Amino acid sequence: MLSGEWLGFVAGALVTSSLVPQLLRVVKLKSAHEISILFTILLLTGIIIWLAYGIFLRLTPIILWNAIGAVLVAGLLYAKLKYGR
Amino acid sequence: MLSGEWLGFVAGALVTSSLVPQLLRVVKLKSAHEISILFTILLLTGIIIWLAYGIFLRLTPIILWNAIGAVLVAGLLYAKLKYGR
Repeated sequence: MLSGEWLGFVAGALVTSSLVPQLLRVVKLKSAHEISILFTILLLTGIIIWLAYGIFLRLTPIILWNAIGAVLVAGLLYAKLKYGR
Repeated sequence: MLSGEWLGFVAGALVTSSLVPQLLRVVKLKSAHEISILFTILLLTGIIIWLAYGIFLRLTPIILWNAIGAVLVAGLLYAKLKYGR
């Protein structure tokens, strides 16, 4: 694997996994008042377009991380709608 | 510009700009209790590695969006440390 690819793999893993503690935090607190609805919607839309980009260019790490990321951000959006007040 | 590049440009713009309303929200509320510190640290580290990836492969959109993203997430981390309780 090229050095650049390796960097991209690590960067994608960190960015996507960062969503896990954030999702767990709002679920644990049962509160998402401070989470911006626009943040979750823009992020989810952007991730879905990254996923399309990955499929279009057949880039496996882009497809993998953004598919996982889309599920996590969809969870955050659900938590925002449920606990957002 | 290739179709794939165009998709990547739009996706990066959406993902990076999603951080703006989130940062504004915690600053406006003066509260970041629900923001996970691990979220901000992992995200900031991941974005800095994406920036290194972009510089390494000389990919202008990757450099641009991740440089802006790093500043925004650094702001969110600062807000978390200031208003986190």
